[in-house]
Amino acid sequence: MSSRCRVALLGFGTVGSAVARRLIAPDAGASSNVQLTYIFDRRAVEKRAALRADGITWTSSVDDVLQSDADVVVEAIGGVEPAADWIRAALLAGKSVVTANKQVVARHGASLLKLAARQGRQLRFEAAVGGAMPIVRAIGEGLAGDRITRLVAILNGTTNAVLSQMEATGCSLDAAVRDARARGYAEADPSADLDGHDARAKLAILCALAFGLRVDPSQIDTRSSASIAAADFARARQHGATIRQIAFAEYDHATSALIAWVAPVEVDGTSIFARTKGPQNAALITGAHSGETGIFGAGAGGDATAVAVLGDIAAIARDRAAIVPPPILTGKFRLQTSDFRLESPVLLEVV
Amino acid sequence: MSSRCRVALLGFGTVGSAVARRLIAPDAGASSNVQLTYIFDRRAVEKRAALRADGITWTSSVDDVLQSDADVVVEAIGGVEPAADWIRAALLAGKSVVTANKQVVARHGASLLKLAARQGRQLRFEAAVGGAMPIVRAIGEGLAGDRITRLVAILNGTTNAVLSQMEATGCSLDAAVRDARARGYAEADPSADLDGHDARAKLAILCALAFGLRVDPSQIDTRSSASIAAADFARARQHGATIRQIAFAEYDHATSALIAWVAPVEVDGTSIFARTKGPQNAALITGAHSGETGIFGAGAGGDATAVAVLGDIAAIARDRAAIVPPPILTGKFRLQTSDFRLESPVLLEVV
Repeated sequence: MSSRCRVALLGFGTVGSAVARRLIAPDAGASSNVQLTYIFDRRAVEKRAALRADGITWTSSVDDVLQSDADVVVEAIGGVEPAADWIRAALLAGKSVVTANKQVVARHGASLLKLAARQGRQLRFEAAVGGAMPIVRAIGEGLAGDRITRLVAILNGTTNAVLSQMEATGCSLDAAVRDARARGYAEADPSADLDGHDARAKLAILCALAFGLRVDPSQIDTRSSASIAAADFARARQHGATIRQIAFAEYDHATSALIAWVAPVEVDGTSIFARTKGPQNAALITGAHSGETGIFGAGAGGDATAVAVLGDIAAIARDRAAIVPPPILTGKFRLQTSDFRLESPVLLEVV
Repeated sequence: MSSRCRVALLGFGTVGSAVARRLIAPDAGASSNVQLTYIFDRRAVEKRAALRADGITWTSSVDDVLQSDADVVVEAIGGVEPAADWIRAALLAGKSVVTANKQVVARHGASLLKLAARQGRQLRFEAAVGGAMPIVRAIGEGLAGDRITRLVAILNGTTNAVLSQMEATGCSLDAAVRDARARGYAEADPSADLDGHDARAKLAILCALAFGLRVDPSQIDTRSSASIAAADFARARQHGATIRQIAFAEYDHATSALIAWVAPVEVDGTSIFARTKGPQNAALITGAHSGETGIFGAGAGGDATAVAVLGDIAAIARDRAAIVPPPILTGKFRLQTSDFRLESPVLLEVV
């Protein structure tokens, strides 16, 4: 607790710049013992003008960060490579790592967590799923005392903004995408969001935390939301429903049977999912002993994601010697086909 | 990680017996490295027949537990004394402690956490607030990267079961209390629940976690729900509202002004609080950077509370050397009077 915790940042995009602004702000709160010392960005020379702060070394060479005295490296680059390589290198250099990268955690989380434990360092990834909604801690720690059997969730804020806008205005998907872009909820190319590739990576992470399963994102049956039309919403409305991109996973511990999918489906108009609008996320977690626990919150955007990153940095700063054992995952499960259809509302009487 | 984590249990009532059953069950999950070795209960001789398990020492002398080789003591006695004394004694004896006791944590949490840190042991209390709903971790860790400004919550499952039953059936409060007793949601004397003394202790704990304030439960303006009548629900219904026991806290970091109260108030019929029925709990947390995060789940009952206790035991078993620094709390805030009235719905457009 004596020395300040030095933080280096990889990537100064939407998330990275929000993290940087929070780290140098006077209200950093839990992170008051934390100091931002390095920022790596390919375009460091251009971007450094965007941040007014002293004592920060900007660099466009990742080796500078790896060789620095940073205690924690925040990976906010996105994409699988080189991000996974750089996380590995940072752990090998004796640094703890905080990442918002769902693709890396979904594909390489297990081996990276093992490496972190071997190095006596931490790898934390609350920001990889659910934005500010603390679902990684809720499932991985808060409900670790239960046997979780089912997850139903909205995990992609961009798609949710698009679909809830179509619901509200009756507009076309293209118009809703343009609107989401204008509000900063969608990137130039939102196809990974609409296609479900973002949500299925997050669902794979949650399957590891909740069920102890090593699920590859490509094993998750995924249907795109890109062809949803105004007529689909009109039909849903006729029976009191609406349409959301839902990530669903159900695990039968006795038979090791897993059902897991991401798809646009009808949800009951009074359900928590219908009430989830704009770039919000929501999740319902069913446990054998606790019944249903729900959580919802800001699922996208730099500020929300930065909250999760700062919480992880604070946890590391608080106890740099903490032992976070790697999860014991099994790949021995049987994928079951599900019979979901757009027309059959899946869900779900909830509070 | 090599040796098993030995757990001793103080109290074999509703929560204690549920914890014991889970600890000896084959699906203990995250707690597979954990072994229940001692159970203290004043009526140990009578109660031991209720649990079929080998290798557990029953005792009606708390000193047996304090002198045992237990690594973790689970306090499930309730009440302030002797529970607080025994937690102190367990920490001084070098044990970590998990407690479900909101009164002890609200009154003595700060000093007990300091003692735990001094002893190099942990004091965990997820079960003290919100049952299985992991709100302690959500606020204390997941949203630690934000500046939280407001909490609105249903924190007492018994009162919520009573009020939502009155809403559903139009019955009197007495009839609803009898119903809640029959369902196991209310104790013989539910006055601490209805009066708000249970909820205000929990709110004091959340004020420490969220705002860093040392709030004594007695500072929290509290109005009883015991005089709510069917006519109050009828009046609320006329403007699309219903009645819930709400715990509210709002903190202005700039002026150090705190508003905190527990009272039965009208809530909008479409709000998350109106949808919270039976012994459920729910909370909305507002952060300066994350906006609104919500959480809901099973707020009462032995099984739900045991999930939270087992999660805390698992966290300790995972890293017995973890450093959990005591929070830095300030008592320097200004209590502001609020102008809540039963007739003015407080709440709140939410997802």
